Amino acid sequence: MTESKPLRVGMVGYSFMGAAHSHAWRTAPRFFDLPLTPHLAAVAGRNEEAVWAAATKYGWDSVETDWRRLIERDDIDLIDICTPGNTHAEIAIAALEAGKHVLCEKPLANSVAEAEKMTAVAEAAAARGVLSMCGFSYRRTPALALAKRMVDDGRLGQIRHVRAQYLQDWLSDADAPLTWRMDKSKSGSGSLGDIGAHSIDAAQWITGLNISGVSALMETFVNERPVGGDFVGLGGRGGTDGPKGPVTVDDAALFTARFEAPDDAGAAGGLGGAGSGSAGSPVSSGTTPSGPIGIFEATRFALGRKNAMRLELNGTKGSIAFDFEDMNSLQFYESSLEPDAGFRKIMVTEPSHPYTGNWWPTGHGLGYEHGFTHQVVDLVTAIGAGEQPSPSFADALQVQKVLAAVEASAENSSRWQTV
Amino acid sequence: MTESKPLRVGMVGYSFMGAAHSHAWRTAPRFFDLPLTPHLAAVAGRNEEAVWAAATKYGWDSVETDWRRLIERDDIDLIDICTPGNTHAEIAIAALEAGKHVLCEKPLANSVAEAEKMTAVAEAAAARGVLSMCGFSYRRTPALALAKRMVDDGRLGQIRHVRAQYLQDWLSDADAPLTWRMDKSKSGSGSLGDIGAHSIDAAQWITGLNISGVSALMETFVNERPVGGDFVGLGGRGGTDGPKGPVTVDDAALFTARFEAPDDAGAAGGLGGAGSGSAGSPVSSGTTPSGPIGIFEATRFALGRKNAMRLELNGTKGSIAFDFEDMNSLQFYESSLEPDAGFRKIMVTEPSHPYTGNWWPTGHGLGYEHGFTHQVVDLVTAIGAGEQPSPSFADALQVQKVLAAVEASAENSSRWQTV
Amino acid sequence: MTESKPLRVGMVGYSFMGAAHSHAWRTAPRFFDLPLTPHLAAVAGRNEEAVWAAATKYGWDSVETDWRRLIERDDIDLIDICTPGNTHAEIAIAALEAGKHVLCEKPLANSVAEAEKMTAVAEAAAARGVLSMCGFSYRRTPALALAKRMVDDGRLGQIRHVRAQYLQDWLSDADAPLTWRMDKSKSGSGSLGDIGAHSIDAAQWITGLNISGVSALMETFVNERPVGGDFVGLGGRGGTDGPKGPVTVDDAALFTARFEAPDDAGAAGGLGGAGSGSAGSPVSSGTTPSGPIGIFEATRFALGRKNAMRLELNGTKGSIAFDFEDMNSLQFYESSLEPDAGFRKIMVTEPSHPYTGNWWPTGHGLGYEHGFTHQVVDLVTAIGAGEQPSPSFADALQVQKVLAAVEASAENSSRWQTV
Amino acid sequence: MTESKPLRVGMVGYSFMGAAHSHAWRTAPRFFDLPLTPHLAAVAGRNEEAVWAAATKYGWDSVETDWRRLIERDDIDLIDICTPGNTHAEIAIAALEAGKHVLCEKPLANSVAEAEKMTAVAEAAAARGVLSMCGFSYRRTPALALAKRMVDDGRLGQIRHVRAQYLQDWLSDADAPLTWRMDKSKSGSGSLGDIGAHSIDAAQWITGLNISGVSALMETFVNERPVGGDFVGLGGRGGTDGPKGPVTVDDAALFTARFEAPDDAGAAGGLGGAGSGSAGSPVSSGTTPSGPIGIFEATRFALGRKNAMRLELNGTKGSIAFDFEDMNSLQFYESSLEPDAGFRKIMVTEPSHPYTGNWWPTGHGLGYEHGFTHQVVDLVTAIGAGEQPSPSFADALQVQKVLAAVEASAENSSRWQTV
Repeated sequence: MTESKPLRVGMVGYSFMGAAHSHAWRTAPRFFDLPLTPHLAAVAGRNEEAVWAAATKYGWDSVETDWRRLIERDDIDLIDICTPGNTHAEIAIAALEAGKHVLCEKPLANSVAEAEKMTAVAEAAAARGVLSMCGFSYRRTPALALAKRMVDDGRLGQIRHVRAQYLQDWLSDADAPLTWRMDKSKSGSGSLGDIGAHSIDAAQWITGLNISGVSALMETFVNERPVGGDFVGLGGRGGTDGPKGPVTVDDAALFTARFEAPDDAGAAGGLGGAGSGSAGSPVSSGTTPSGPIGIFEATRFALGRKNAMRLELNGTKGSIAFDFEDMNSLQFYESSLEPDAGFRKIMVTEPSHPYTGNWWPTGHGLGYEHGFTHQVVDLVTAIGAGEQPSPSFADALQVQKVLAAVEASAENSSRWQTV
Repeated sequence: MTESKPLRVGMVGYSFMGAAHSHAWRTAPRFFDLPLTPHLAAVAGRNEEAVWAAATKYGWDSVETDWRRLIERDDIDLIDICTPGNTHAEIAIAALEAGKHVLCEKPLANSVAEAEKMTAVAEAAAARGVLSMCGFSYRRTPALALAKRMVDDGRLGQIRHVRAQYLQDWLSDADAPLTWRMDKSKSGSGSLGDIGAHSIDAAQWITGLNISGVSALMETFVNERPVGGDFVGLGGRGGTDGPKGPVTVDDAALFTARFEAPDDAGAAGGLGGAGSGSAGSPVSSGTTPSGPIGIFEATRFALGRKNAMRLELNGTKGSIAFDFEDMNSLQFYESSLEPDAGFRKIMVTEPSHPYTGNWWPTGHGLGYEHGFTHQVVDLVTAIGAGEQPSPSFADALQVQKVLAAVEASAENSSRWQTV
Repeated sequence: MTESKPLRVGMVGYSFMGAAHSHAWRTAPRFFDLPLTPHLAAVAGRNEEAVWAAATKYGWDSVETDWRRLIERDDIDLIDICTPGNTHAEIAIAALEAGKHVLCEKPLANSVAEAEKMTAVAEAAAARGVLSMCGFSYRRTPALALAKRMVDDGRLGQIRHVRAQYLQDWLSDADAPLTWRMDKSKSGSGSLGDIGAHSIDAAQWITGLNISGVSALMETFVNERPVGGDFVGLGGRGGTDGPKGPVTVDDAALFTARFEAPDDAGAAGGLGGAGSGSAGSPVSSGTTPSGPIGIFEATRFALGRKNAMRLELNGTKGSIAFDFEDMNSLQFYESSLEPDAGFRKIMVTEPSHPYTGNWWPTGHGLGYEHGFTHQVVDLVTAIGAGEQPSPSFADALQVQKVLAAVEASAENSSRWQTV
Repeated sequence: MTESKPLRVGMVGYSFMGAAHSHAWRTAPRFFDLPLTPHLAAVAGRNEEAVWAAATKYGWDSVETDWRRLIERDDIDLIDICTPGNTHAEIAIAALEAGKHVLCEKPLANSVAEAEKMTAVAEAAAARGVLSMCGFSYRRTPALALAKRMVDDGRLGQIRHVRAQYLQDWLSDADAPLTWRMDKSKSGSGSLGDIGAHSIDAAQWITGLNISGVSALMETFVNERPVGGDFVGLGGRGGTDGPKGPVTVDDAALFTARFEAPDDAGAAGGLGGAGSGSAGSPVSSGTTPSGPIGIFEATRFALGRKNAMRLELNGTKGSIAFDFEDMNSLQFYESSLEPDAGFRKIMVTEPSHPYTGNWWPTGHGLGYEHGFTHQVVDLVTAIGAGEQPSPSFADALQVQKVLAAVEASAENSSRWQTV
């Protein structure tokens, strides 16, 4: 009846992400064997009444009204950053320098410069045994983790096509109220960083290949929105007669991309001979071994699409397709089976599948929040082993560079932009 | 920062259902406002070492090795029964008579006689303010709760067809090991009571109509199975060379059914004029107002179907269709829209949908376990209000009568059997 | 530039089925190499003006106003019967006795007695080289033909479950007009013979096993309907104020079934040991090797389902599932692939698939009418080779016996009825 | 029993498209009332033996071995051009100048210059009553025609997003043989013109808006392929040891796009206020009323996707989504219905739907070839009425300009290219 050694967590921020993280810290040890047992030690927020309400609701033992105080406390081992992107760098750097492990929500920062500084600090901290991770939680969706395993096992052969969409519709109503997610100074960007970043991270992680260049188009459909409306979920409903404020981020971001070539792209069994030329050009030069080509779209205006985070990869031997709106399954195609093999809809709930064996019997699906629980499992396991968790700040910096390249290309007549 | 008054829970049993219930007691107050706050006070099981391990894992404060002791304790308000069906009656009756509220897993009992006795005791207890509920958790799947709301709102008109399948495949392998679920003395029946009972309860609850008669066929495909194999999830893998024991339950149960007529079946806008005759006959007599006809199948041998709890209703104005393998959506058809209206796939994750507003933003789906959390929410809310929770033991008794009628018909050449 | 020897066709009837058959006779030789070239020689119908209009529209060379005259003509080689079921026996017998090959629409007849007589005549005619076939055209849907191939190749192992639904909704509106399809004297039965017969034939053909017993429930939801309304497609719209006539057939038919055991059911690799007892009992006796169990539903009141002819088979090694509403694909599950293998959605448009290689490139789907064209291909090929086409009248007689057993059981309190 | 006046057709080319067109000419008058009755008068091809075989197979009355001779004949009213793109201009211009109506397969030509010349000739011919049409047959898929009707009826509101994919996989195998479709001198381009052209035409036609600018990336994955292999369907299988020849076209084409603004884009109910700036820039300027943004992908390397011609539009009031692999249905979302309305899967087989009332009862789907039959119906109807058929050569020229802009952008570092 003994628990493992505690891991005392201090969380900054307590809205949507805070609720999800709280549940994950509380639930992970109930279903997984962990080397350290998370304690929900303290939550920080500026409004004392609200932060106490959150602490009570979500089960935190204490509160702070200044995140700096949280970092000063001796009884905190890890800082969990759930605030908007403009605050990430300062908090994460302070925490790491104070010797606290860090879990930081995505995107890592609001600029490449910030992300580079954070990564440098994180790498220095790691040398002292202080670890950090960025919260690209979709990596922990069992179906996407299975996709990664299949690619690693070579079942798709070499990847030729990456096709990613992240479609939502909660801003489609022009009267949905203005929130910090539409304020560039807080969020860094709009759909691009909020949801497109997930697609970019998933695509790079699953293929094992970085994006090397992009060409982009961005659009803001609704330039101003009501202020002061009720906030419901991500969106909500503002008044139509009241004052309006400016939307300073993109509503939609579209881009084409090239990925770096895999190490063995020129070998037999590769893409077949052609090539994409240098990373700086979208035109195939014909001789250099090439990596996949990609097409990405992120929008919050695709009416009827609620959380369609979709990813499809086509390789020389097989394909996978995923849609978060049907998150418990993965579509898989193997050309070797027979003509036409057909896409298989794998229900990713088997004991042999990533994470799922710790939950329910086969066919009893999981939900959105489980990705956060699995994220805690992987983070705590890495901390227990003294190993670098994944994705590292360096991985997240690479995503940040792609975001920056997308914005640069869109501002420069869609011209090809090297990452 | 004050919590509501505690509701001290004692749980009997701690395997699959115990894990699900523990999570629900722990999680419900973190997402819903409850009039009482569940405390995981004690868990009971015969093996002291195992029950302590479960208590630690799932977060219970204490243990008992005899469920009777749990009932004797003054610091327990509610008994949660998660054991096989042959033990339900004794535990539930003792608990209710000791003044404890009861949540009892389904099916309520292993016979109608037991269920009738339990219901009588429950009704007497209710008069004293001691409440009880049977754990047909699928009622708390948001999509099925939305289906219920749509039927209640008249959007389907009068129901003509009920089409229910509960398809699993974990016993398809003839070498899957023998467990208590294949032992009639413990489980009462096989697929019929284990999963078919969910279909029966859901169909009666959503239509608001009881099944009045059935004709059935049952089958056992694999008559003996290895004993002593490892248990994984519901099934697992036994040895192929070791000793075998007898399977004493059905592997599959199929039946047709008639439902009682709704009160307004003879009125304008009803089924159109025809009729089904008396409940004792499957043949339509042509004059009596009729209720829906139903077709049910429950099996654990439908290879490839993992947890396909499916329900379709066709009414005079519309239809709904549900499949638990895609549990976050409900298919809905309204003939009034336009030809062909088409089935709409409603993503049941809106703030206005049952239960979902307390969780994540739209499109961020829930999982299997949430049904148990919602069950706790509804139970605690009812207890707080001093009202009868639903489904009552009486509701569960009605399901038990259908189960018995199915077995009686199958044993009597499928002859029509009044419920 | 020579065509093959002609096969001169005389068709009786020219409404829905007549249009489909005309297209098939005209189209088959344009896509398939046939040993005989169909000529659309003559069409027969009672109304001279209408039959001339049909002949012009559908491309027939001449007309007759009495089908007997068609049979008398020397320049007709084959009689194609597209009239209601009450006329099949007389026409088919006269044609076969006159030495004409016969293609007869399904169901073969309106009674077992008629079907037996037709079968006897057909077998006698076959001995003289005069061939006959019943038009269960769904056998020629490429996806179902592929299903048959897979079962024959042993890829499903032994079949345990047959699950068949045929769901339409064109009678759901109580004001849809009365037509011959609702008149038992013409159609023999309602949804049972019209659409349920397709399910029965497909299930027996694909499994290679006959149904040996059934238990049934039938229902008529709307007992009378407007007469004289406009006929559109299968249904249409009658007046609501005019006179009404009686519906004398079933609107829906539901039944459970047992199939005969395969020859090798007792061998290793069989169903696993259990057994279903004699065909006369729905209860498993536990020792006799058993065949599959089946569940069937046919209705024209499933609002929103337009032509959902669905069939699912679960075997010891795999499963297949089909829905005519997505007719160009077949779902296939093989348990050997990996856990969870997942159902594959095979697009049945490959050159290696049945029939499809003669049409378009892969992925370019076929439609409803192609089943009739393939039926012509198979019939003409058999006639050219002097071999018995399939399904024979004997095959269709077996379906007729199941239809009769279903009706007998429904009239006898659902009691088990041996076929 | 009289047919309408004949329309005598002479077809050039007789492979894949020739087979499809022959079937359409033959079938259209059997299901639709036409003002002129097509006669399959003559087919032209260089190889006399092969062209006679095709004439016999497909039912043409005579042959020519030089298309010029076909145009000289007095007994030909319409020339149907089914040859590769490099021959379109010469044949079409000669035919129009000889006073023959013309149906020309897509893409209209292999260059904008050719297409402009053809369009000028076509417009001059139209003034003399000689009509022409380009064969973008997907416009005649009932589901896409219904989509067009819905957009025209305002049910989507103003369109914000166009999302088009055309995914095939028949070139994924690096040993698939070289054919004229991979030879730029014959085909003009690869996946871009072959399949991407369909997406472009459909998107412009349904939205009623032209594409005004693009940014593109193109790729050739397999630079050389076996020559002389067997040709099966679109692809086939070459030898792996024999000689190889160069692939001179794109294997995949990806681009982002902007559409022109609708006339009422600035009015109330428009996109909401934002704007896209001038057509020459992918960056939103913030004040000018804007049209939709688009994202397009065409590839023949998406393993497992057989003919996934997909189109999704998101507007201010609703969305539609289509996939040719499920061609008989259209997904439709109306935000006004209720939260969440859900996408409706409309089975496009109702009498009220475009084209379908002339075929089979509801739910009995159509196939690929029906688009060609409907194309004949619309063309013959327009000729009968003396009206311009749609799409005109001018419409096809607009597609050609987009194809050229895509290629120009891909060759210029993806830089934004005005159409």
